[in-house]
Amino acid sequence: MSKLTIVANIKAKADKVDLVKAELLKLIEVTRAETGCISYDLHQDNANPAHFMFYENWQSRELWQIHMNNQHLADYVAATEGAVVEFTLNEMTIID
Amino acid sequence: MSKLTIVANIKAKADKVDLVKAELLKLIEVTRAETGCISYDLHQDNANPAHFMFYENWQSRELWQIHMNNQHLADYVAATEGAVVEFTLNEMTIID
Repeated sequence: MSKLTIVANIKAKADKVDLVKAELLKLIEVTRAETGCISYDLHQDNANPAHFMFYENWQSRELWQIHMNNQHLADYVAATEGAVVEFTLNEMTIID
Repeated sequence: MSKLTIVANIKAKADKVDLVKAELLKLIEVTRAETGCISYDLHQDNANPAHFMFYENWQSRELWQIHMNNQHLADYVAATEGAVVEFTLNEMTIID
């Protein structure tokens, strides 16, 4: 199994930045404890505080997919319904 | 001085992927040796091989700006002239 890098970009509605940030922060400890999680770091754009980004490294795509189906991500989606204007996710490979 | 995360997205022309990749790879060793460089990792999108991404961490914005003005980046820009269709750069802060 080869490693997987995930880049997840989340853009919050202007008046929902604090809500989205709080919900994203809740994901970190529980996700870092998941099988296969190498790193899971949340960032905020210096020029646009509504733009958050998770940079994640996983032992394999299979283990990342288990994470994606976990309850805490479902809870995040429910808690931020209507508060996120854009979400993109890229699966990548470190080439050096 | 606070740390800085850089996310640089580079999209190559379809027929210039190998050229751009080769030029990006040349940047890695010299950049990692620069003062202030904590990490400098090149990725390729699994769904779009023309999409490259550097995930970078720097000790400070000042030291990153010295990097941005270095000769090897100027050489990269010259070597890939006309071969890159899109370039975006985000300055970010790790919040957890």
